[in-house]
Amino acid sequence: MGELGDVKKVSMAVIKRLPKYHQCLGNLRNNEVERVSSQELSEYLGFTASQIRQDLNNFGEFGQQGYGYNVEQLYNEIAKILGLNTEHKMVIVGAGNLGQALANYQGFQLHGFNIIALFDVNPKLIGLKIGDIPILDSDEMIYFINENDVDIAVLAVPQDRAQQVVEQLCKSNIRGIWNFTSANIKPTRNVIVENVYLIDSLFTLSYRLNEEKLQERLAKQKMKKEIKIRR
Amino acid sequence: MGELGDVKKVSMAVIKRLPKYHQCLGNLRNNEVERVSSQELSEYLGFTASQIRQDLNNFGEFGQQGYGYNVEQLYNEIAKILGLNTEHKMVIVGAGNLGQALANYQGFQLHGFNIIALFDVNPKLIGLKIGDIPILDSDEMIYFINENDVDIAVLAVPQDRAQQVVEQLCKSNIRGIWNFTSANIKPTRNVIVENVYLIDSLFTLSYRLNEEKLQERLAKQKMKKEIKIRR
Repeated sequence: MGELGDVKKVSMAVIKRLPKYHQCLGNLRNNEVERVSSQELSEYLGFTASQIRQDLNNFGEFGQQGYGYNVEQLYNEIAKILGLNTEHKMVIVGAGNLGQALANYQGFQLHGFNIIALFDVNPKLIGLKIGDIPILDSDEMIYFINENDVDIAVLAVPQDRAQQVVEQLCKSNIRGIWNFTSANIKPTRNVIVENVYLIDSLFTLSYRLNEEKLQERLAKQKMKKEIKIRR
Repeated sequence: MGELGDVKKVSMAVIKRLPKYHQCLGNLRNNEVERVSSQELSEYLGFTASQIRQDLNNFGEFGQQGYGYNVEQLYNEIAKILGLNTEHKMVIVGAGNLGQALANYQGFQLHGFNIIALFDVNPKLIGLKIGDIPILDSDEMIYFINENDVDIAVLAVPQDRAQQVVEQLCKSNIRGIWNFTSANIKPTRNVIVENVYLIDSLFTLSYRLNEEKLQERLAKQKMKKEIKIRR
């Protein structure tokens, strides 16, 4: 039971890297690679070999010195750690463009995340289907979640309705909220919230664009200085 | 010029925290707070005060011991570092649900990111508008980007078309690609790519749901053991 106890201590930074390990090992497995060293993983992933060994040590002892990791085994272990060995039922709250885009995305089901309904307040949308997934009346949401053992609610409503919907969701047995709004939502009970802050990702891109500009400017200034010195 | 040189060394982990600083300082500024200590920032942000001082030191010397940071000044500096002091022009490639959802999102313009066109290959969509933003023919994309000094292309096409569109984009003067597909895209020249891997965020949520379950199971097992011992 030691491994279970260890799970608690893992830092968010490590957790955020686990999906990368999962993806990389999945690719190796699909290419019928049987074992892989932390050095090889390092080349694929861009983290250092020592970082990789440290990360994986959080969850038990998987590798053998001089042998490396068994790809199939490590892939399965990480899938288990990520909770991908059980089916998750999801609903999407908000059937606007974003809700519909998420409902259409095939990648979730591939990993055992099944979207079984969308909810909306708009009478024009209620009763329609996105693929096979029905759009239901938000009034039925709490009942539906409890009746169908839904784990995860995807929040895709307008920002100014976000908190109100979260409070409603907290009246159901929902366990996790995947928040696509930019609202700083506050659950009224112990529900896990994972925020998708798109603007942060855009700011990172903007920083990197800006960094290039700064470097270009710097390089030009250096060149000018050098020319002056030579004169 | 020392500050510009320093920009190069900043790690991705620090860069990813900058948007959080920006948001927090923006809130403080809006509440007319004039100065803030790293300790107070730590309480708002959930990073340690020492982490915050280290992060900010990457970009120059902003704080004064015993005084803290000037909110307005630090906010403006971080905005500059993030490249938010200049207007960015964006186009969205792919005018399906996701492209339309992104075009409708008001938060980008608020920070100087202006979406000026969507592109699609679907004749039924070409000529329509999302709000004020026209959907144009993908054939005009390269010309439009160069003619309008577009910085950033938002990639919202189906996964199997992603690489093809990226290669087209690389023929234009585009500088950054914000990738919403799950494709592992490879630009054919030096273009900055920022990937939005939604599945990673979902896996993180799943891990946290699973962690709770593991802890619950552990707690139950402990209780059973204790009951046995008492017997």
